[in-house]
Amino acid sequence: MKTMHGPSVALCFVLALPAFAQDPLPSWKDTAPKKAIVAFVEEVTQETSRKFVPPAERIAVFDNDGTLWAEQPLYFQLAFALDRVKALAPTHPEWKDKEPFASLLGGDVKGALAGGEPAIVQIIMHTHAGMTAEEFETIVKEWITTAKHPVTHKLYTEMVYQPMLELLAYLRRNGFKTFIVSGGGIDFMRPWVEKAYGIPPEQVVGSSIRMKFEMRDGKPVLVRLPELNFLDDKEGKPVGIQQHIGRRPIAAFGNSDGDLQMLQYTAAGSGARFCLYVHHTDGEREWAYDRTSHVGRLDQGLDEAKTRGWTIVSMKDDWNAVFRK
Amino acid sequence: MKTMHGPSVALCFVLALPAFAQDPLPSWKDTAPKKAIVAFVEEVTQETSRKFVPPAERIAVFDNDGTLWAEQPLYFQLAFALDRVKALAPTHPEWKDKEPFASLLGGDVKGALAGGEPAIVQIIMHTHAGMTAEEFETIVKEWITTAKHPVTHKLYTEMVYQPMLELLAYLRRNGFKTFIVSGGGIDFMRPWVEKAYGIPPEQVVGSSIRMKFEMRDGKPVLVRLPELNFLDDKEGKPVGIQQHIGRRPIAAFGNSDGDLQMLQYTAAGSGARFCLYVHHTDGEREWAYDRTSHVGRLDQGLDEAKTRGWTIVSMKDDWNAVFRK
Repeated sequence: MKTMHGPSVALCFVLALPAFAQDPLPSWKDTAPKKAIVAFVEEVTQETSRKFVPPAERIAVFDNDGTLWAEQPLYFQLAFALDRVKALAPTHPEWKDKEPFASLLGGDVKGALAGGEPAIVQIIMHTHAGMTAEEFETIVKEWITTAKHPVTHKLYTEMVYQPMLELLAYLRRNGFKTFIVSGGGIDFMRPWVEKAYGIPPEQVVGSSIRMKFEMRDGKPVLVRLPELNFLDDKEGKPVGIQQHIGRRPIAAFGNSDGDLQMLQYTAAGSGARFCLYVHHTDGEREWAYDRTSHVGRLDQGLDEAKTRGWTIVSMKDDWNAVFRK
Repeated sequence: MKTMHGPSVALCFVLALPAFAQDPLPSWKDTAPKKAIVAFVEEVTQETSRKFVPPAERIAVFDNDGTLWAEQPLYFQLAFALDRVKALAPTHPEWKDKEPFASLLGGDVKGALAGGEPAIVQIIMHTHAGMTAEEFETIVKEWITTAKHPVTHKLYTEMVYQPMLELLAYLRRNGFKTFIVSGGGIDFMRPWVEKAYGIPPEQVVGSSIRMKFEMRDGKPVLVRLPELNFLDDKEGKPVGIQQHIGRRPIAAFGNSDGDLQMLQYTAAGSGARFCLYVHHTDGEREWAYDRTSHVGRLDQGLDEAKTRGWTIVSMKDDWNAVFRK
């Protein structure tokens, strides 16, 4: 035994080393948010912990726009819709004289969106409905792999946040099941989130339009109808969580007032809970906005996070990197 | 090396033995359905197979009533609702003079259900809404662990089908993700299906009523409203699959015409596909019914299964056991 002692200890040391040496969140600075995340994960995963949570109940929910990827100068799904309007214009000659399409096609995005929600709904319904589920998937896949962001000129999927990718992977390595719970369209996200975030389609919750089962030439298809089915925003998020997941999450991540009810609902469960707001404070590397922004407004949520001691991440102060490397 | 040869071969043999000796589907007779299941699983899981399917795409969907557990003499969820009417009667004195409640409370179930769908909807809405999601979960859990079936006097969860439990486990061991896609209530199933079938709440698709997020004494709750949200039956099943799962299944299991569109939708994808109907042919051990039954009618589906060569399981001829052991 004695001759074995030295080498086996050395072997243990070598094998153990990577676990200690490897930082699971290298793009997070060693500031309070990172410490809070690691402390929470250890608290719920160590079997001797009073707050241990069985793996099946380790549900973590993430908003998408502004939390996992950027959302300025306008929601990326809206950029997709605008591109679709342009692509479809030749088959819709009537759009030349009809708002919001006329402004849009004239290059006046602001003018088109001045119509507010009704204008946006019109654009979404004309660009997201009227085809089968499979056809829409193909359209989204084509756009997401070719369209470029107007400011950074990156692919949109290159504008996912590196620290959040590390966080998703870290949680999954610790037995968490990670879900997206977004106000964005569920079928707009599904074609690309598995590759971008490692989140499979069945773990995506989002807004949706109605669909209809139909036989076309003897082949069953799902037709997308120009009618809202579910709005997964604000009060809708906890409802979407219950409908899709059926369990209350133990951790929730958002960036805007649209996520507040999801964080409240998560926080209200018993046992260990973790709520985090990403605060857009980095006008250099990304965008700086909060209480008065039209996109991703964070006002009431910021106050509540401070009052309740939720974790607030300052992108400027707490992240070493912003976009995917 | 030579001295090692003998023992290591013996060791391999011993280690390999259980894999050959163990029948993954012991309650299935060695008839055509079992052979078809095993052939399909091997076809999609062997990496050298032309029809290999990556694990992420191995989605299998199961109807619940009549496919995973029994459904006679009436859907078990309806038995739950009737029990709830009795339990709630003291707080609803007006029910004494109001149908369908009056008949029900007088012990005349047939008379109560004679009102057809509107009567059933009334019963469901009065017994499934008006409480929070958590309160409803508690009610279901209490009922499912105590209520007994009127004919077998078993717990309802003892009336799940042993061969289907083996099939679920066999598929999961082969990398499949198993989902329930049922016309039954999503929140009626979730409290017990994880224990009964090993299917977690987030893999349950079903019919649902609307819910509302609300603050009660500063605590966020989800209130169940007496209003249908989604009917997950017939044409609804493929829609429910797309909304919840976002991928077309490669295998589908049902027992009634209510499952036909789900099987059609599954069959219409490319690559290897497997569709199976459980046919209730065993009047001795279970119930024998199909084309003319009010519960779980299998008529059009039976014809289509024969035409298209889907697998049809005769409970009498193809199963060694019926209920959970």
